Amino acid sequence: MKMEHDLHMTIGEEETSYFKNSRLQEKALVETKPVLQKIVMEMCVALLHPTMTIVDLGCSSSDNTLFFVSNVIKAVSYHLEKFSGHPTELQFFLNDLPGNDFNRVFQSLQRFKNSIDVDHKGGPIPAFYIAGLPSSYYRRLLPHGSVHLFHSSYCLQWRSRLRYEELVADGQMVLTFLGRKHDDVYSASLNRLYGLLSLSVQSLVEEGLVEKEKLDSFNLPLYGPSMDEVKAVVERSQQFDISRIKLFETNWDPYDDSEGNDVHDSIQSGINIAMCLRAVMEALFTSHFGESVLDELFNKFAYNVALHLDKEKTKYSVITLSLKKR
Amino acid sequence: MKMEHDLHMTIGEEETSYFKNSRLQEKALVETKPVLQKIVMEMCVALLHPTMTIVDLGCSSSDNTLFFVSNVIKAVSYHLEKFSGHPTELQFFLNDLPGNDFNRVFQSLQRFKNSIDVDHKGGPIPAFYIAGLPSSYYRRLLPHGSVHLFHSSYCLQWRSRLRYEELVADGQMVLTFLGRKHDDVYSASLNRLYGLLSLSVQSLVEEGLVEKEKLDSFNLPLYGPSMDEVKAVVERSQQFDISRIKLFETNWDPYDDSEGNDVHDSIQSGINIAMCLRAVMEALFTSHFGESVLDELFNKFAYNVALHLDKEKTKYSVITLSLKKR
Repeated sequence: MKMEHDLHMTIGEEETSYFKNSRLQEKALVETKPVLQKIVMEMCVALLHPTMTIVDLGCSSSDNTLFFVSNVIKAVSYHLEKFSGHPTELQFFLNDLPGNDFNRVFQSLQRFKNSIDVDHKGGPIPAFYIAGLPSSYYRRLLPHGSVHLFHSSYCLQWRSRLRYEELVADGQMVLTFLGRKHDDVYSASLNRLYGLLSLSVQSLVEEGLVEKEKLDSFNLPLYGPSMDEVKAVVERSQQFDISRIKLFETNWDPYDDSEGNDVHDSIQSGINIAMCLRAVMEALFTSHFGESVLDELFNKFAYNVALHLDKEKTKYSVITLSLKKR
Repeated sequence: MKMEHDLHMTIGEEETSYFKNSRLQEKALVETKPVLQKIVMEMCVALLHPTMTIVDLGCSSSDNTLFFVSNVIKAVSYHLEKFSGHPTELQFFLNDLPGNDFNRVFQSLQRFKNSIDVDHKGGPIPAFYIAGLPSSYYRRLLPHGSVHLFHSSYCLQWRSRLRYEELVADGQMVLTFLGRKHDDVYSASLNRLYGLLSLSVQSLVEEGLVEKEKLDSFNLPLYGPSMDEVKAVVERSQQFDISRIKLFETNWDPYDDSEGNDVHDSIQSGINIAMCLRAVMEALFTSHFGESVLDELFNKFAYNVALHLDKEKTKYSVITLSLKKR
């Protein structure tokens, strides 16, 4: 399995596409919007240069990509209206692996620019430029000291070390990722979800649809850290200070906006959750297990999730973290 | 006809694709390579900042795109070997309209990076970062004073005014475009080529395959200026000094590398020339005349070109111009 090649969101606009199944990611962006606004405002005040450079790591190709860009423009526009001055120009880099559907993102830019013009009628809009940056974020992405703000929402892994060099002094990072509410790793909600996925592959093995070696050689390097673990890692790096850290919870089913402990329709929720995970994981699973078992696999998974939800409504724990370069 | 939407090279890897039919453009890059090297070397010496920012306007999606990038890296690498010092990092922006096949370019980057590593074994390679910049170059593309070098090869129109603001002080532009050797506009080789194209559409009208109004409402805003006209325009703008200007000639048939006045196989040359023009113009013609007449149109054009070549071997006049910001 070549992660660089195979880890990309499902392309296109079909029912199983990431484009149609990215509401979970959208909810996180809505949740983190106030934090982002505060940070952008702080940076506007501190900025000496007329241009602010902002990078979205793992941008993918749904409308969410530009939702983040739009939030930054709004925050800067608000700052310009109140205080005028810098920044007058924004340089965005949308980063993802080369397999991402950048053509789709690029072709939606004109519509996006028009919508910004409409939204900000009369108000000050900073000039903004949007570039695509196709590369793994495990490597250096941009020149030394050239970036003011890195943003990453639901990119599964991150290594802050690699972004330190690219940030200007006082540069910031806003990171949103799946974490864990309690100390016990095994009781964590993320573990339960992937446990159900593993169960689903297991039953395909029992039915002879997937070879046992295929299952044994499959590894998803996922880990949901607790707030304390995150703090400890950042502290140890000695490169960043934590300016904000917050944990929020979001229902497994991205279309379930209810607050309580009841699952209204566990069958439908199971399907929604399976679609959402499939949009993220399909390319990886296709590469390893073959395309032919995908429908069966995610049907089983939807069913297993529904059974679980009948017993207990479960939520993801999501950590939002803001880091400032020391 | 929406130029922004319809003017893009033919995508994909088919026989009629730009990818397979861009040898004419490649020849210009080979021809201008020494000029480019000299300019990059000059810029390296003058550069105060560790990062050099380079923009390729109208980059398209064939191997030519990265051929230019490779030439710049080679020139900088040579400079570093001789003199060390700056620049240690290169930021490339590949610009084209949003309809360009950026995914193809991005997916070839890993192979490209590997080939650079192999070519420069042991020598100093500057770190380089490649971003895609989807936008019409009739608009501002990047923040004020952020670019050291603009490059444009065979982009049909250009407006230097719009690039002035983006260039750093002493920033340079290297522009290659179709021009004209002699004063008389009507005798120019470019006019003859498009005259043959127009003749081919005309005969489709006569056969009832294309409506006369369609032909009358079609306009290709192309003009091949002479060296004197170019000099006059640059002088008038008062924004740039011409550091170099040169005219060279290249056979209409990009696969004809011969020097003399003989056309070896006019039928084959006609086909080659038609394929080459089709790769550039197909999207425009499809949008205006419909896809159904394309084969017929370019077959007729190939035939008309062959007839012309039987009488006279004809060449494009190409102007390469280097401009320095005042």
